[in-house]
Amino acid sequence: MGDSFGKVFRITTWGESHGGGVGVVIDGCPAGLEISEQEIQRELDRRKPGQSRITTQRKESDKAHIVSGVFEGRTLGTALSIMVWNEDARSKDYEEMKELYRPSHADYTYDRKFGFRNWKGGGRASARETVGRVAAGAVARKALRTFLGIEVIAHVSQVQNIASTVPPEEVTEDAVESNIVRCPDPKAAKRMISLVEKVRKAGDSVGGIITAVVKGCPAGLGEPVFDKLTADLAKAVMSLPATRGVEFGLGFGAIKLTGSKHNDPFVVKDGRVRTATNNSGGIQGGISNGENILLRVAFKPTATILTVQDTVNRKGEPARLRGRGRHDPCVLPRAVPMVEAMINLVLMDHILRAATNKNLRKLSRLFDLPPP
Amino acid sequence: MGDSFGKVFRITTWGESHGGGVGVVIDGCPAGLEISEQEIQRELDRRKPGQSRITTQRKESDKAHIVSGVFEGRTLGTALSIMVWNEDARSKDYEEMKELYRPSHADYTYDRKFGFRNWKGGGRASARETVGRVAAGAVARKALRTFLGIEVIAHVSQVQNIASTVPPEEVTEDAVESNIVRCPDPKAAKRMISLVEKVRKAGDSVGGIITAVVKGCPAGLGEPVFDKLTADLAKAVMSLPATRGVEFGLGFGAIKLTGSKHNDPFVVKDGRVRTATNNSGGIQGGISNGENILLRVAFKPTATILTVQDTVNRKGEPARLRGRGRHDPCVLPRAVPMVEAMINLVLMDHILRAATNKNLRKLSRLFDLPPP
Amino acid sequence: MGDSFGKVFRITTWGESHGGGVGVVIDGCPAGLEISEQEIQRELDRRKPGQSRITTQRKESDKAHIVSGVFEGRTLGTALSIMVWNEDARSKDYEEMKELYRPSHADYTYDRKFGFRNWKGGGRASARETVGRVAAGAVARKALRTFLGIEVIAHVSQVQNIASTVPPEEVTEDAVESNIVRCPDPKAAKRMISLVEKVRKAGDSVGGIITAVVKGCPAGLGEPVFDKLTADLAKAVMSLPATRGVEFGLGFGAIKLTGSKHNDPFVVKDGRVRTATNNSGGIQGGISNGENILLRVAFKPTATILTVQDTVNRKGEPARLRGRGRHDPCVLPRAVPMVEAMINLVLMDHILRAATNKNLRKLSRLFDLPPP
Amino acid sequence: MGDSFGKVFRITTWGESHGGGVGVVIDGCPAGLEISEQEIQRELDRRKPGQSRITTQRKESDKAHIVSGVFEGRTLGTALSIMVWNEDARSKDYEEMKELYRPSHADYTYDRKFGFRNWKGGGRASARETVGRVAAGAVARKALRTFLGIEVIAHVSQVQNIASTVPPEEVTEDAVESNIVRCPDPKAAKRMISLVEKVRKAGDSVGGIITAVVKGCPAGLGEPVFDKLTADLAKAVMSLPATRGVEFGLGFGAIKLTGSKHNDPFVVKDGRVRTATNNSGGIQGGISNGENILLRVAFKPTATILTVQDTVNRKGEPARLRGRGRHDPCVLPRAVPMVEAMINLVLMDHILRAATNKNLRKLSRLFDLPPP
Repeated sequence: MGDSFGKVFRITTWGESHGGGVGVVIDGCPAGLEISEQEIQRELDRRKPGQSRITTQRKESDKAHIVSGVFEGRTLGTALSIMVWNEDARSKDYEEMKELYRPSHADYTYDRKFGFRNWKGGGRASARETVGRVAAGAVARKALRTFLGIEVIAHVSQVQNIASTVPPEEVTEDAVESNIVRCPDPKAAKRMISLVEKVRKAGDSVGGIITAVVKGCPAGLGEPVFDKLTADLAKAVMSLPATRGVEFGLGFGAIKLTGSKHNDPFVVKDGRVRTATNNSGGIQGGISNGENILLRVAFKPTATILTVQDTVNRKGEPARLRGRGRHDPCVLPRAVPMVEAMINLVLMDHILRAATNKNLRKLSRLFDLPPP
Repeated sequence: MGDSFGKVFRITTWGESHGGGVGVVIDGCPAGLEISEQEIQRELDRRKPGQSRITTQRKESDKAHIVSGVFEGRTLGTALSIMVWNEDARSKDYEEMKELYRPSHADYTYDRKFGFRNWKGGGRASARETVGRVAAGAVARKALRTFLGIEVIAHVSQVQNIASTVPPEEVTEDAVESNIVRCPDPKAAKRMISLVEKVRKAGDSVGGIITAVVKGCPAGLGEPVFDKLTADLAKAVMSLPATRGVEFGLGFGAIKLTGSKHNDPFVVKDGRVRTATNNSGGIQGGISNGENILLRVAFKPTATILTVQDTVNRKGEPARLRGRGRHDPCVLPRAVPMVEAMINLVLMDHILRAATNKNLRKLSRLFDLPPP
Repeated sequence: MGDSFGKVFRITTWGESHGGGVGVVIDGCPAGLEISEQEIQRELDRRKPGQSRITTQRKESDKAHIVSGVFEGRTLGTALSIMVWNEDARSKDYEEMKELYRPSHADYTYDRKFGFRNWKGGGRASARETVGRVAAGAVARKALRTFLGIEVIAHVSQVQNIASTVPPEEVTEDAVESNIVRCPDPKAAKRMISLVEKVRKAGDSVGGIITAVVKGCPAGLGEPVFDKLTADLAKAVMSLPATRGVEFGLGFGAIKLTGSKHNDPFVVKDGRVRTATNNSGGIQGGISNGENILLRVAFKPTATILTVQDTVNRKGEPARLRGRGRHDPCVLPRAVPMVEAMINLVLMDHILRAATNKNLRKLSRLFDLPPP
Repeated sequence: MGDSFGKVFRITTWGESHGGGVGVVIDGCPAGLEISEQEIQRELDRRKPGQSRITTQRKESDKAHIVSGVFEGRTLGTALSIMVWNEDARSKDYEEMKELYRPSHADYTYDRKFGFRNWKGGGRASARETVGRVAAGAVARKALRTFLGIEVIAHVSQVQNIASTVPPEEVTEDAVESNIVRCPDPKAAKRMISLVEKVRKAGDSVGGIITAVVKGCPAGLGEPVFDKLTADLAKAVMSLPATRGVEFGLGFGAIKLTGSKHNDPFVVKDGRVRTATNNSGGIQGGISNGENILLRVAFKPTATILTVQDTVNRKGEPARLRGRGRHDPCVLPRAVPMVEAMINLVLMDHILRAATNKNLRKLSRLFDLPPP
């Protein structure tokens, strides 16, 4: 009962890490959007395993297939279904997990919730589940860029203690993609890569922060009260595996300031209303104000490690477990397209929701009626 | 299109700070729950303005009226409607806001979204809107305590640089309510109160952190993928006014550790499966594991300040604004019951959602049928 | 968990026949719509009890109060709350129902579902619950008429064996309101009124058919697959008390024809694509085609009758019950505004939903952005 | 935005008649249900084209593939995805439809709604879309039969003027499946088959009525106000292609009776509360009362006919169209499993929804907690 996301642009993902495949169905995608499998593939390739020496070595081509909802290159306005087959699932690696709970994984909680679980991999708790999100996010991304000029760019801003020094607003997609850790600061990137390699050799793992910036977002996105843009973005990124926190604008840092310092004065720039500072991170009262949206997401160190750990078995008896198989010593490089996807999905949903409010005066035109 | 929250236990709030009143309708509250106006009033009193010298001096008795859904003291299983009349709204204080945008308030974004706004107060962006949430939260709280023994306790753990030293798990309701700033550490509380008073005199404001602990939560709450307990809790608290960030367990601090240190080993204690540490904050793979749930929410300094600020008017011309009227120099003491309410609402919703999964084998008994 | 209706224009009603009052909250009403209590009152007056000698004599002024969501006469775009106080509830009349189940009422099923019920009147199963629907329908009606020129007109087309002979498309609001039974055929109306009076004297009741026509509906409303306009309209009217069936266009009569006779050929009239016949009743493939929408709703004879009936008590023992109190010998005259309200609510919801699909090319303009 | 159905047991279907395939994702299916592809296949085989000489001759094996959500034969509690590949799509047959609108099909309304359409077949308006519904319905059916003993049996009760004489409550699955028209009355069935064959030779089509009975339904299903069981069942069946009306119990026939004749007296039978008659069709106040549920659904004659018809082209110019290709001269035999599927889906959803209300006292047991 949690496999769907969004209200108007609504996605439902399906698939386990060790099953036939994974996919997504989009309900509520407007008709007439040009979208190709290549555009979806670009994002899947940024997410896929085995893409570099610092990610898991599981080999998946993650080839996107659009199986419904697109006709002659354009969306039909009805259910858009995209799927990817699993290829390199090695269930044998997981034989031991049938009885043992991996610490800080979802093995134990799934068993408690459902009474049993797909122990051949992490099931729906596996990061493999995010294939569907990223595919759907690529569709949202295309619409947002094409019709509204909205750009979402995320990057790895911190791995353990190593932080990027590039101001988030200045980060370009090229800079993000210029190295395998997806940090736009070349020096920091180099150190991050060394750290991840060192950690991998030790069979350990490490976490960090992804920072995202949304540029070109119009004012007026987000709904009062519960579906504030902050609230929906927070839910979106916190639904990704391994996330531990999220903050907007100055975030937790805002508490160091008094209101007179934290408030963003309004000014007129180039004939438009702007704010002199952007401590609010582009969202005020839960609604976008037209400035850049800024958020930061904390990812914990990957739970999969290759050392010996204390645990219990399904019978509730003490046991020891040595991690095996392939793993990501640091999820952050692959999580960059996931964070972007979730943000694109939220914005697309909110654009369509905002449209239902803006249109009252324009409804007759939308339906080609003579104004009454 | 954002006035409702929850999937099964679903609330819809209504009302502006300067209108007839505020209220909430609960759809999906199970039948047979004993609930009184007094139990709701207790929570509203903790939220209401004018309760102490460090909150706004607006005088509202905030008297709860149950107008439907309860019969002879018990919930009917149908729409439960609670309302509170507005009493001390002073629209005159807001005359100037008709044309001017208060910095870091929702005035500008509402105007951009809806074309106009209720300028007599903050409309739906006012913290007054939370009356309905707190009232509904009181109903959820009663059900959770009575039938499941789940307790949610929040407290002010930090105001600007002053932090509580009491471990969150040890905080009691009595300690929270023992002083007007709702910090269980008496020394820190005293310093916080002094700070807020100083800031108020300066016409300024200050932010901080509310920490919440959930005790007695059963394992198995939260849904895989999108409606993870972390995700829904994050959305819930980030939908409160003035929030800037949220984190679970070690939160942003988790990135300092490697996986081998961050993972929580499973152990057997008193015949039950437990974790030796609780770095995960009670939620793994988005699902509760039976340990205490821990979260921290950052609140910015209140946007309403009484000094002169730069702004623009509705025509987009530069202007200056001197804040007037009554204000909260620090929202945190009154936000404690709001945070608790949102957490109670999420847990109640997820308890009922989890019930739809657990019941398959027990369905025939639920409906008094002979087993087929 | 069934007190809400609609996806984008979403209403939640509350209140029992014998409680403080009844009301509705609308979430998703676009901003800027001019609406007054008088416009809502007009519809409530058509629904209210005691309006004529052939309806129940319960006296309720049913005065509409808008308590939030409207500012200076226009909708704010946020939760619009309307309430009506109960005045003439006579619980004494129902004392006997505490233990006895009225045949073909909801007493027994509510008890089985919820374990107990508000026995002072029908609770949520009472037709009094429809006050909220009719109030919300008045808001939808205003928007549809003002911005799109869509008119919904329902009338009583049959009471038992007495049928109107006026073609539904030719029925005017004035003709409907010209007599107390709301049948536009004066001769049939007279006979219907006599029948209802005769039946009332006998302490019995009678049913009939309400026919509704939607004029001016643009092509393109309704969603493929599940949310077809037929499907959503069917649900809407079948959620009204005492309904037993619904049909569209030729309805059950369609089965007498072969496809070659039933199909509606397309023709060009006045430069527009039209159909030569309208056997489809304005909806094809679940989507409006621009012709008049036609539907018919069957209402059973009222369950409340004043004769002696066999029944059982709460302990499951045989008993006899003599109906008492005030009752509607025929619900149809008061059900006309209810049917109109439900249709207006569905159309408003679908107009806004359709807008989310139509806007892709116009999105940049909606948000006042330069086209990318 | 209409590809999903249900609130707790929620399905999303995808796929066009002429695309890669069709399928369904179920969100909210409880864990631990044993389900096999064979059980799903049984229902798909009853729906599939080419099954007899009176259905379309399109050849589709409609082989069901479960691609996620089932592990070692049991449902995981997470997204259950089922797909079927298209095999015998002949787009050439539809070349002419690129420009011409088939009368009483969805070609014109889709074009008006979305601006273009998949003209190679009916797209989402094709009956092929129902594959996903029937597959999901098979899962619901299994759960309802296994855990609650609820049986849904539908049959063709009328084709044009030929009606079955078997009382619906006495119809067995074997009788329904004993002939290709799925009418349990052998004599009527024979005449129906002759009629359909005659109509097919004439290139014409014919409609009729499907009657469904639900046996073993517990009392208490359905929600007050909007989600009455009647309302949700009405929406469910009216969302099927070619439906024109639905009625419950005596339906439109109820208007011939007075209340004293129509009311169902309560009686005690075998120690249980029952009704002496079942004019209500098993649903009172929108909630099941434990008696058999009875409904009848009218299907129009198929829109696809092979004679020449007047129409217009995409430019709005008059044109003539001769139907070609394969078609069902009467949809009813194949619609029987569709109607059953929709009813099973509604009941499954409502069983789970009802569980959220029934559990309050049993919650602590559900979660293996000591009672507080």
